[in-house]
Amino acid sequence: MLEDKNNQRTPISQLGEFGLIEHLTKNIKLGQESTVKGIGDDAAVISRQADVVEVVTTDMLVEGVHFDLGYMPLKHLGYKAVIVNLSDVYAMNASPTQITVSLALSNRFPVEAVEELYEGILTACRIYGVDLVGGDTTSSQSGLIISVTALGEAKKDDLVYRNGAKENDLLVVSGDLGGAYLGLQVLERERQVFQVNPNSQPDLDAYTYLIERQLKPEARKDITELLEKLEVKPTAMIDISDGLSSEILHLCKQSGVGCVLYEDKIPLDPQVISTCEEFEMDSTTVALSGGEDYELLMTISMEDFPKIKANPDFTVLGHITEVAAGTQLITRAGQQMELIARGWNSIKED
Amino acid sequence: MLEDKNNQRTPISQLGEFGLIEHLTKNIKLGQESTVKGIGDDAAVISRQADVVEVVTTDMLVEGVHFDLGYMPLKHLGYKAVIVNLSDVYAMNASPTQITVSLALSNRFPVEAVEELYEGILTACRIYGVDLVGGDTTSSQSGLIISVTALGEAKKDDLVYRNGAKENDLLVVSGDLGGAYLGLQVLERERQVFQVNPNSQPDLDAYTYLIERQLKPEARKDITELLEKLEVKPTAMIDISDGLSSEILHLCKQSGVGCVLYEDKIPLDPQVISTCEEFEMDSTTVALSGGEDYELLMTISMEDFPKIKANPDFTVLGHITEVAAGTQLITRAGQQMELIARGWNSIKED
Repeated sequence: MLEDKNNQRTPISQLGEFGLIEHLTKNIKLGQESTVKGIGDDAAVISRQADVVEVVTTDMLVEGVHFDLGYMPLKHLGYKAVIVNLSDVYAMNASPTQITVSLALSNRFPVEAVEELYEGILTACRIYGVDLVGGDTTSSQSGLIISVTALGEAKKDDLVYRNGAKENDLLVVSGDLGGAYLGLQVLERERQVFQVNPNSQPDLDAYTYLIERQLKPEARKDITELLEKLEVKPTAMIDISDGLSSEILHLCKQSGVGCVLYEDKIPLDPQVISTCEEFEMDSTTVALSGGEDYELLMTISMEDFPKIKANPDFTVLGHITEVAAGTQLITRAGQQMELIARGWNSIKED
Repeated sequence: MLEDKNNQRTPISQLGEFGLIEHLTKNIKLGQESTVKGIGDDAAVISRQADVVEVVTTDMLVEGVHFDLGYMPLKHLGYKAVIVNLSDVYAMNASPTQITVSLALSNRFPVEAVEELYEGILTACRIYGVDLVGGDTTSSQSGLIISVTALGEAKKDDLVYRNGAKENDLLVVSGDLGGAYLGLQVLERERQVFQVNPNSQPDLDAYTYLIERQLKPEARKDITELLEKLEVKPTAMIDISDGLSSEILHLCKQSGVGCVLYEDKIPLDPQVISTCEEFEMDSTTVALSGGEDYELLMTISMEDFPKIKANPDFTVLGHITEVAAGTQLITRAGQQMELIARGWNSIKED
C-alpha cells in the first residue's frame, strides 16, 4: 500500500484530529466563485448567483463492501469517491461546485495512507474544478469509510430529472458499458493468482481499459458540455452506477413509461467482448447488471435525434413506450424479454 | 434494543437497498420553501432566495467511537446525529434548512432497527423544521456509521465566524457545561453494574438532566433567535462539541487574540456539581474537557453587555485579550494557568 513512500508510518495519533485535518487541508486552493469560506469554521459558506438552483447528493463508500484495498490503491479510491458523487450532479445536468468529505479510519492507517487518499480526492477536485470545503475525520473500529457530499448548480430550466421521459423519446447512453465490472473480475482473479504464487508476473495488457474503468472512473462532465453545445436537453437523465437495467427501470418507473431496449445496440468496448469470452460471461448480462460505469443514460426527444446521430459519444439503445407495454429487452435473436433489475446491490447478506 | 417492537426482525435484504430507502422515506414531508426536490432523483434540488448565503457542514458518528448501542437507543442516536450538525449551523448564526443522511449498517440490524433510527432523525427534522432531502444506505462489515450533512442559510451580514473576536470583547456561553460528559459516565457505570447483576434496578433520578444531555442533546436554535431579538451580533461564535477549552483555543487562534477565563464563572448545573463530588471528579476539568454539550460559545462587544446581562441563558466567562497575553484560566484561588486543549479527541489509539 505504501511501498513508494519508503514505508513511513506516522501514527495519526501523533497529529491528533485537528492536526491531521490541518495537515491535509493546508494547501487547498478554492477556485469556485460561489465558495465564500471553505474549511476552518463550523460550516463552509456558499453564495449562489440569483439565477441558479443548487443540487446536493451524497454517497458513502465502505471498505469490504464497495472497495478492497488489496487492489484499490488509496489514491484511486479517493479519486473514485469524488467521481461517484460528481456523476450524480452531472446526471441532473448540473455542474459540481463543492464537496465535503468525511472519513472514518481505523488505526492501521498511518498519516501517509490518509495523505494518499487525500491526494486522490484533491486530484479529482482539481480536474473537475470543484472546491473541497468541509469534512470530518474520525476513527473507526475496523475499516475505512468515505462519505462524500457534492453540491452543484444549474439554471433551473436546465435541470434534468428522472421523471421527464415521454412516449417515443429515444433511450440514449454515453460511452460503453460493462467495463468497470469486468475490470473488477480481472483484478479479483489476479489477486487469487498472486495469493497462490506471489512471484507471478501479471500480464494485464489485454485488460488496461477495463482496469482503468474500475480503478479510475470518470464522471461525464464532457457529455453535459456536449449536450449544451448541441442544444439538446434530455427529457430525463440518470447516471449508471448500478447497471443499465436497474437505471432504465428507475427512469421508466419515475416517468410512468415503458421502453424497448435492443440488445444489439448496447455499446461494448472490444476488451469487454474479448474478456467476456475469456471469462465465459454473457456480455449483455455484464452491461445490464455490472454497474459502476458512471455513464449517463438519458431520453431525448425524437426531434433532437439529428443533433446526436453522428456523434460517437452517444448510442441510441431503444425508445420509450407507453407504460402498459412494460420494459422490454429485444434480444439479438429478436426475442422479447421483460427487463429485470439485477443491479449491483450493496445491501446484501454479508 | 427492540424490546418494544415485539422483537420483529425483518432482514434488510428482504427489502433491498431501494426498497429500504423507499420504505423509510415514503412519508417524508418537505416544509422548507427552498426545497425544490427531495429524495428520489440523482440529487436533491434547492433554490435559495437572492439575499441569503448557504452554509454547509458535515459530521460522522461511528459505533464504538462516538456511541455505544449498549446505552444509546437507536431513536436517540438518530436524533443526536442530526443535532450535532444543526449545532454547527447555529454556530454560524444561520438557520438549518436541509440535511442528507448516509448510513452504513451491518446485517445484524433488521429493518425495525433502521426504522427506529429514522424515527429519531425525522423527529429532529420536524422539531427543527429541517427537510431530509437525500442520503445513501449501504451495508458495512461491522458497526453502524451515520454521516449527516446539514445545509443552512443566513443573510450574509448575519453570519458569525470564529475569527472575529476582538480585544476587550466578552467571552460568553449559553446554558451550562459538563452535563453530557457526566451523563456518559453515569450510563457507563450503570452498564457495568448491570453486567455484574442483571437484576439490579438502577435509580437514575439524581442524574436525569445529565443523561438527557448525553442521550438527547439539543441544538441552541433558541439562542440564535434570542440574539436576533436582543439585536446582539456576536463578533465570533463556535459550538461546544469538544469541550470548552478546545473551543476557546480554536476561537482565539482563528481570531488572533488571547483571553482570560474565570473558573468561578463556568456555569454548572447542580447535578453536575453533585455528580462530580460523587465521582470524585473536578467539575472544572469536566466542563473544560468533557465536550458534547452543544452550547454556543461566543464573543460579544462590550457595548452589547447591557442587552444580555440580565438573561439567564447567557453567562459571561471572561474576556478577550491581546494575543501576547495567551489564553489564561484564572482559578477560584486567583491563580493564573495557561489553558490547554484536552477536548475529547475522536482520533485516538483504539
